[in-house]
Amino acid sequence: MRIGAIEAGGTKFVCGIGDELGTIADHISFPTEHPEVTLSRAISYFKDKQVEAIGIGSFGPIDLRPESPTYGYVTTTPKAGWQNFDFLGTLRREFPVPLGWDTDVNAAALGEATWGAAKGLNSCLYYTVGTGIGIGVYLEGRLVHGLVHPEGGHVPVRRHLNDDFEGICPYHSDCLEGMAAGPALEARWKMKGHELSADHPAWEIEAHYIAQSITGAILLNSPEKVILGGGVMQQSQLFPLIRDAVRRNLNGYVNAEEIADRIDEYIVPPGLGQKAGLSGALALGIAAAQSGLNSGSRC
Amino acid sequence: MRIGAIEAGGTKFVCGIGDELGTIADHISFPTEHPEVTLSRAISYFKDKQVEAIGIGSFGPIDLRPESPTYGYVTTTPKAGWQNFDFLGTLRREFPVPLGWDTDVNAAALGEATWGAAKGLNSCLYYTVGTGIGIGVYLEGRLVHGLVHPEGGHVPVRRHLNDDFEGICPYHSDCLEGMAAGPALEARWKMKGHELSADHPAWEIEAHYIAQSITGAILLNSPEKVILGGGVMQQSQLFPLIRDAVRRNLNGYVNAEEIADRIDEYIVPPGLGQKAGLSGALALGIAAAQSGLNSGSRC
Repeated sequence: MRIGAIEAGGTKFVCGIGDELGTIADHISFPTEHPEVTLSRAISYFKDKQVEAIGIGSFGPIDLRPESPTYGYVTTTPKAGWQNFDFLGTLRREFPVPLGWDTDVNAAALGEATWGAAKGLNSCLYYTVGTGIGIGVYLEGRLVHGLVHPEGGHVPVRRHLNDDFEGICPYHSDCLEGMAAGPALEARWKMKGHELSADHPAWEIEAHYIAQSITGAILLNSPEKVILGGGVMQQSQLFPLIRDAVRRNLNGYVNAEEIADRIDEYIVPPGLGQKAGLSGALALGIAAAQSGLNSGSRC
Repeated sequence: MRIGAIEAGGTKFVCGIGDELGTIADHISFPTEHPEVTLSRAISYFKDKQVEAIGIGSFGPIDLRPESPTYGYVTTTPKAGWQNFDFLGTLRREFPVPLGWDTDVNAAALGEATWGAAKGLNSCLYYTVGTGIGIGVYLEGRLVHGLVHPEGGHVPVRRHLNDDFEGICPYHSDCLEGMAAGPALEARWKMKGHELSADHPAWEIEAHYIAQSITGAILLNSPEKVILGGGVMQQSQLFPLIRDAVRRNLNGYVNAEEIADRIDEYIVPPGLGQKAGLSGALALGIAAAQSGLNSGSRC
């Protein structure tokens, strides 16, 4: 198989070609500009590649409801030019092949479940903690969509006792994203996350928020693996802090060895590393090719 | 079809007989005592009923992992006699028919998705707010199990500004259940919930906690319907308070007409009323009969 993959982030696009084994033979990356400019570059890349299908994991919010007149659109994003942009339709006009379409974090969750840290499992959550926070949700062997699609980055969180930062989410002020995304770290400490030392108190506070949302997500969804990716999670000192806080929060209530005895293997970085997003888009493309849909498909 | 159904609650058991249309022809109810006493009564009830299958929605925690040696057991409950009790095995020895087995709230979610308020939808959450709080999770047409099973009643919640009640959860003190289950209401106000007037400030505080957990659950799982059952939700003044708080919390972020324009039809009481639990167990029994498993089945 020769499958196209697009990791469509709000900051950069990655386009690549891969196969059903998850091998990515080639890829390019370019900044996300106005959609006409950006999609033209993506289309040029795939033009002579003879792909059988293309999978797209996109920043959002996006329309995932096949019966909706705006299915395949990016919807209410504040990103200039992308509001109500027909992403899938633009590709469909150029490439009459099956197209897989989902959120960037759902794609990454599927990639991790197919070839990465959750391989062989029926469920995982994939967090990206970076410019924003997103949570991909894969349960009972399926990506979760529902009413719109998961937007777990905006869940309410309890404030850390030593934190009076007001939060920066324009919708909710002090939701998870408002308190713990990269820009929140920078606004709170007046320097970028990667400039803070590994033993700075920032990380204990950061871990508090991420761990609290993981605690809630474990209780509500009982995932078999929790995968933490994105730029902020490059700060590897966060992992032990988060694991300890999750275990402390649950306080023995969820009776599973995976949490009680092996939490180091339960809350983990992406098995696919920086390729989780592109691999996930590839997995969406493979699923679309297998289901044979030519108007975008859901996994 | 002639299917048995057991709604196995921590306070009472309901056993019934129904068919594939969801009609319940007969049922009995008795208090939950020691498991030997209680299961004997259930077994006597079904003994001469010639059921093709039995579905069981049980209080928990329970073991839902088919590959586990304690599959079908009630596990770490504090309820006397029920710890590590082989519920499914006890029934299997008496009734060599397919057995469906899930949590009480997952059963109720399936019942509501099959015949009730979420009929025709691919997803819903079913809350019971009573002696405890449980959340059944039905997404992408399937009940969610994962590592153990959802235990959403114990999610962390932000404290209401006018509430200094310490919470009564033995594991987490002030989690959702610790702050908002029936016994928490009673401990906070020194009288039972049904003795508080409909305009008592208790209800605004109660709605705050329930709405906050619904807000988080909508953001993480994007369900197509949220169904609120259980004794505390008999206080119908809670519904408008909860809907208003959810809409205020989301603040327009989840861009769905169901929430923006029709939240009265989105956050609703059980369509099956008090029969949600028993109907759900019936739906589990039907699924077991259809899949033909005789060792308990998962829907």
